[in-house]
Amino acid sequence: MPEPAVRRLSLYLRELEGLLDRQCETISSRQLGSLLNLTDAQVRKDLACFGQFGHPGVGYRVSELVVRIRSILGTDRTWNALLVGSGHLGRALLSYRGFARKGFRLIAAFDNDPTKINQRVGAEPGILVEPMDRLPEAVARRGIEMAILAVPQSVAQTVADQLVAAGIKGILNFAPASISVPAHVSVATVDLAVHLEQLAFRICTRQVELERQTAGKQQGADAIGGPSR
Amino acid sequence: MPEPAVRRLSLYLRELEGLLDRQCETISSRQLGSLLNLTDAQVRKDLACFGQFGHPGVGYRVSELVVRIRSILGTDRTWNALLVGSGHLGRALLSYRGFARKGFRLIAAFDNDPTKINQRVGAEPGILVEPMDRLPEAVARRGIEMAILAVPQSVAQTVADQLVAAGIKGILNFAPASISVPAHVSVATVDLAVHLEQLAFRICTRQVELERQTAGKQQGADAIGGPSR
Repeated sequence: MPEPAVRRLSLYLRELEGLLDRQCETISSRQLGSLLNLTDAQVRKDLACFGQFGHPGVGYRVSELVVRIRSILGTDRTWNALLVGSGHLGRALLSYRGFARKGFRLIAAFDNDPTKINQRVGAEPGILVEPMDRLPEAVARRGIEMAILAVPQSVAQTVADQLVAAGIKGILNFAPASISVPAHVSVATVDLAVHLEQLAFRICTRQVELERQTAGKQQGADAIGGPSR
Repeated sequence: MPEPAVRRLSLYLRELEGLLDRQCETISSRQLGSLLNLTDAQVRKDLACFGQFGHPGVGYRVSELVVRIRSILGTDRTWNALLVGSGHLGRALLSYRGFARKGFRLIAAFDNDPTKINQRVGAEPGILVEPMDRLPEAVARRGIEMAILAVPQSVAQTVADQLVAAGIKGILNFAPASISVPAHVSVATVDLAVHLEQLAFRICTRQVELERQTAGKQQGADAIGGPSR
């Protein structure tokens, strides 16, 4: 399954969940595509990777497609997750409501900083920050499969190793560093600076495009109205 | 330029900056690829999109490649950015050191919540949170081109419209909502829940793969050592 198609599944799901909230029952590939600036052909091709979803003359049934995509993505169940690193970003992630909406439960938090341990963090009533040496027992006893890594770059690999040893199956890495894990563990990385860098690139290319268009129009205007041609 | 290639440029740059810090002078496409689990062919193909970088028998000169990639991405200069939304996530982003390292300066913060306005947020000495009606003047006077949007989903589009009206050229959107902007404005979206969802998918597929491999080995073992075959 091509990775960009899987990424787009998440975006389809987000739009479809919004449509469900608004009691919309069916949608065509063209309508779904237009919500995400994609062609209808792209939508049909992506969804066809995962099975037959559409109904001729009806389009997609929204509720059916939501159920199917959640099942493909593995979010038709609840996932227990823990956080390592209760700094600013970690605390922001604990307070982020979007995770629970998708079935992700952040149920434990760990840090190695004595000033943070035993503090309650995140949205009320908050989660108690525990010392790192409690991590293995918490993972085993509370059935935690995912970890969110919000620690400084310098300790990212060490903490990743501890997570793997404790039996964590997937790590969402917010540290601006590549981490190595064994083949049975999955990693997704969110590098916030990289996102801003990509935005800088898009602003620059957009500006060049606009300048070219303006220059093109100007040349056109010169050709039509210019006195000496 | 294909979007995934541009995204990989950021990842190459991150690794190359790390190599520079460690005084590494040259690197081959194979070495650079192995840091990111990519083939050497992929690295060469990506970089060839943007010009001739390699030196036969030498590979890439790290410092040269860093300069060239920064110039392509548009991060060979400083970008002024503002934040809208000084909740948990917004404050975490203000404290995030990774932005400054890449040349992004978060120099202003806005909110419409009277309890947050005039508070200092982010790393010491902090940034004063200003009311939304000051935004247009700040953008114009302080040369701000980028905005980070860390507001609730329900107001994301309204705030995006205000940013566009104020002259912002690019928005990094953390609200879990698609926002519409005119063609001259760029948007990059970071949906944290989508990243966790993608991780769930990878954990599920990895598990299925491992089960298949184990089943395959078991079958193999049965075929070799099974008594009744």
